[in-house]
Amino acid sequence: MTFKAPDSLAEQIAHHLAERIIRGELKERERIQEQKVTLALNVSRGSVREALLILERRHLITILPRRGAHVSELTPHNVKSLYALVIELYILLGYAVAERWKTTEDLQPFVQIQQRLSENAEAGDIDSFVQSSFDVMRAAFPFANNPFLQETLENLLPAMSRTYHLALEKRKTEMSQFLNAFAGLLQAVIARDPAQVRETLTAYSKHNCQMVLAAMAER
Amino acid sequence: MTFKAPDSLAEQIAHHLAERIIRGELKERERIQEQKVTLALNVSRGSVREALLILERRHLITILPRRGAHVSELTPHNVKSLYALVIELYILLGYAVAERWKTTEDLQPFVQIQQRLSENAEAGDIDSFVQSSFDVMRAAFPFANNPFLQETLENLLPAMSRTYHLALEKRKTEMSQFLNAFAGLLQAVIARDPAQVRETLTAYSKHNCQMVLAAMAER
Repeated sequence: MTFKAPDSLAEQIAHHLAERIIRGELKERERIQEQKVTLALNVSRGSVREALLILERRHLITILPRRGAHVSELTPHNVKSLYALVIELYILLGYAVAERWKTTEDLQPFVQIQQRLSENAEAGDIDSFVQSSFDVMRAAFPFANNPFLQETLENLLPAMSRTYHLALEKRKTEMSQFLNAFAGLLQAVIARDPAQVRETLTAYSKHNCQMVLAAMAER
Repeated sequence: MTFKAPDSLAEQIAHHLAERIIRGELKERERIQEQKVTLALNVSRGSVREALLILERRHLITILPRRGAHVSELTPHNVKSLYALVIELYILLGYAVAERWKTTEDLQPFVQIQQRLSENAEAGDIDSFVQSSFDVMRAAFPFANNPFLQETLENLLPAMSRTYHLALEKRKTEMSQFLNAFAGLLQAVIARDPAQVRETLTAYSKHNCQMVLAAMAER
């Protein structure tokens, strides 16, 4: 889509609740009651139900028949599973960029995001840093040109964002680690070296996953 | 989940519409009007809206603000994109089984599904054949033990099913081709040979994708 229409009411409610889950204001396993949300936001029950389906698609809540909606659990197994899947999808994106960039101009968006990441890290701005890190992925979408891959990753991002927030709140210095990994990745892409793309991304993902698991153990 | 609670009304409506899309009774780009479905099935508008969100998650429809819901397009690019993503996820499952099976009993479910596939092909029963082919994937889920991978694949299946139906209606003989590929895959898994798992699955996926594209060109 080249233009972005205003979000539906359900999408706005979903966004509001997603932010609260990602920031940890709504805790894992916490019940999300339709009626409470309906009253608190002064919206229709129908819109809230639609918002919950959107959040379920984004892996932030679980809806069980007759038991309602609950914030998804963040167990070590869930975190490892999430990272194991996402890294493979990132690698597909990395391969696509490495294979298909033509001129250095094609790589300019990545260099710009690298600059922004570095500024965000400097300022200790976790929110912007996490957002910029997802911009890397989005800048790679046109190279892969795969709407299914794109949608799948967009749906997994909120859960990733939730784990990043959890970890970075505790270890802001980790942002510089990410910058190093990104510099390495960019080199591998420029060299069109798929094995190096896989290696850099896998090491990066393992490191992040460990960082999240460590942060979880400290809760 | 070990038990299966009865589906919600929205889920039942989604299932009904999904079947119609998969069988090609609802054509690509066809508008799905909330009010028509509401009247035809005698259900609430809210349930229909929820059903549409479920169908969007399963990649069968597209919902655009102010333009409503339409059956997803089946362009060659979409089909290739779908197969390109799904094959990588199948390969992850294949690796997991190849790496983690312990006794021949662990592989028994696959042998049983192989038997069923062969019976379905013999009987020319496309519906059951497609279902059994997805059972292969589901039998591999416990080996990967990754809820995110599982959910992502379950959401992609209806779109896969739609393409299989399109192709197999025209070429029933293709079912035997699938059986050969599956026998090869099982051998690679038993030999714990990841390179062979990737090769068998990639060849199989390319062949199927070509078959679907050929069937689409004949429409």
